Amino acid sequence: MTTYSPEHLHELLTALFEEAGAHQEVADTTADVLVEGDLLGHHTHGIKLANGYLKDLKAGKASGDPDTLEMTESSPVAAVIDGHYVLGPYLIRRALEHARQAAEGFGIGIVTLKRSHHIACLAAYLRPLVERDLVPVVLSSDPAVASVAPYGGITPAYTPNPLAIGIPGRDNPMLIDVSMSSITNGTVNKTRAEGGKLAHPAILTNRGTASDDPEDIFTTPPGSILPLGGQAFGHKGFALGLMVEALTSALGGFGRKDAPTQWGASATVMVIDPARFGGTDAFVEETDFLTRHCLESERADPDVAVRLPGQSGLAKRQRYLREGIPLPDDVVESLRQAVAGSTLADGSLSRALGL
Amino acid sequence: MTTYSPEHLHELLTALFEEAGAHQEVADTTADVLVEGDLLGHHTHGIKLANGYLKDLKAGKASGDPDTLEMTESSPVAAVIDGHYVLGPYLIRRALEHARQAAEGFGIGIVTLKRSHHIACLAAYLRPLVERDLVPVVLSSDPAVASVAPYGGITPAYTPNPLAIGIPGRDNPMLIDVSMSSITNGTVNKTRAEGGKLAHPAILTNRGTASDDPEDIFTTPPGSILPLGGQAFGHKGFALGLMVEALTSALGGFGRKDAPTQWGASATVMVIDPARFGGTDAFVEETDFLTRHCLESERADPDVAVRLPGQSGLAKRQRYLREGIPLPDDVVESLRQAVAGSTLADGSLSRALGL
Repeated sequence: MTTYSPEHLHELLTALFEEAGAHQEVADTTADVLVEGDLLGHHTHGIKLANGYLKDLKAGKASGDPDTLEMTESSPVAAVIDGHYVLGPYLIRRALEHARQAAEGFGIGIVTLKRSHHIACLAAYLRPLVERDLVPVVLSSDPAVASVAPYGGITPAYTPNPLAIGIPGRDNPMLIDVSMSSITNGTVNKTRAEGGKLAHPAILTNRGTASDDPEDIFTTPPGSILPLGGQAFGHKGFALGLMVEALTSALGGFGRKDAPTQWGASATVMVIDPARFGGTDAFVEETDFLTRHCLESERADPDVAVRLPGQSGLAKRQRYLREGIPLPDDVVESLRQAVAGSTLADGSLSRALGL
Repeated sequence: MTTYSPEHLHELLTALFEEAGAHQEVADTTADVLVEGDLLGHHTHGIKLANGYLKDLKAGKASGDPDTLEMTESSPVAAVIDGHYVLGPYLIRRALEHARQAAEGFGIGIVTLKRSHHIACLAAYLRPLVERDLVPVVLSSDPAVASVAPYGGITPAYTPNPLAIGIPGRDNPMLIDVSMSSITNGTVNKTRAEGGKLAHPAILTNRGTASDDPEDIFTTPPGSILPLGGQAFGHKGFALGLMVEALTSALGGFGRKDAPTQWGASATVMVIDPARFGGTDAFVEETDFLTRHCLESERADPDVAVRLPGQSGLAKRQRYLREGIPLPDDVVESLRQAVAGSTLADGSLSRALGL
């Protein structure tokens, strides 16, 4: 299988974003976050997104100018960023850096972000902070999109609304990145493009019945994605989805009520420093104790080991850094399209990557 | 159906806790939180708990002395409370009050609580803060108990780990209180006591198969409660359960590694003030917009309306304040036992309540 050098991919993406008008710092950070997504194995939310970001940059629907963002600090630990649709990875990294400094001074920092462009893979932000023994949290919703229906209803009203949190540990640090719906829009689109069926009936048709066919989303009126918990316990996933809406769009003061139509996100980040609570050592000892206990659990299926959140992603990352990233065909094709529309089409870098 | 006056119940519980040695302030707060649980319809986590609290007070396994707790403030917005097993409702109310003051000054406040006694119904803490247009968050785990297995495993490793959050809104404020497991220990115990079956197969037997029989928890080795998401998407509920463990026991520095055996809780509370972010008006307008849209959704079942989290509880609360609380038989019986063991057995109050 063909693998691709993370460094070369990073270099190519940075050049593409810069060519599309992004400031070097924004281009570099965005490339970094997208490649990190693929390093962790999240190929629907990595490099594949670059093409859409480039189109929006060229159409003026995304900004690559870091001076566009406005940050309002209401206290040493709380801030609001109006992102004016600067590329999301740059905004989230800025917000996390602000929250990190607050956390190291005060135990916690929180920044909410309105009018961000799309923010890619949430898990991709966590590792650098976890390695510093901090707890980063990232929440996101997209007020321009509705794909999940309220529990008991069939009319799409909100988004899968992921929640990501990094948990420091010596033996088993964890990277959690889960949506409050059964599956994501990305999984629906990917499965549909492949002409396949979902592994589970995670969709609700526009008649209110469960389905494993992604086509049932794209009907008139549309179907919806079931909240986490499905038809039996979906009231919990619905509640958690509403929580993420509240902590992102409502907290930032810009959301569905403003009827945005642009690809984007409302997001909130927090960083917590365990050193300011029960202490870093006690924190990681507790993480290690619990995770060891989980890994030692008797298995439900003797052939399938218990896995911790992020464990598989972090293992892939180590391997891909050594051996290159085995990008799926759809990701390579999407990158090929991005390169084809640029002056880099005949460049040595594109050739080196086989594009 | 017999109903019971909330004021009389409050008075009786306060007297019982005081007789068992609790300081008036602790007795009053605990009574208040327990009655609030029943007012919201959460009868497994309301007054029914009093009997166990009283037994632990008398046995010296719970404290009713507010001077026992130690609070360490590491910054104006972050604190740790070592609860030394003071009754949980008193500790949580104290922690929330501390976090509220921090939030009103800085936008956010966070207090983590180790060695609390049991903290009752999480939803019961939210309303007073939501009515002040604040966002309270309460997370809890019990490091002395393990009833949920890691996804892919069958050995119980952690607790249902509820997360509660209050969301201000003018038309539809919401009280969210959901466990990160399919069902709670309370539901398992109640269904077992009634000799019934669960509404859904939310249990994993000790052989790794799904079951709706609560007896399958009490086997040797024990069964477990499935994480939220069940057998298909339980990796998400498992991740969220680990998140709550990290933000409670790990953050406070006291948890499963310390092998506590006492009925208790690790908890963390946060309060966020939207006024310090995008503004209170924008927050509640967004809540109202989204909730209206959810309530107007086409229904999956024409006979079942979409309900918002807390909507049914708040409606019950209004009715029960007017008409009295229709306590289930098991709650009345538990109260009868509590009274029988006290000097209040022949009191006018007990008689007024029919106990």
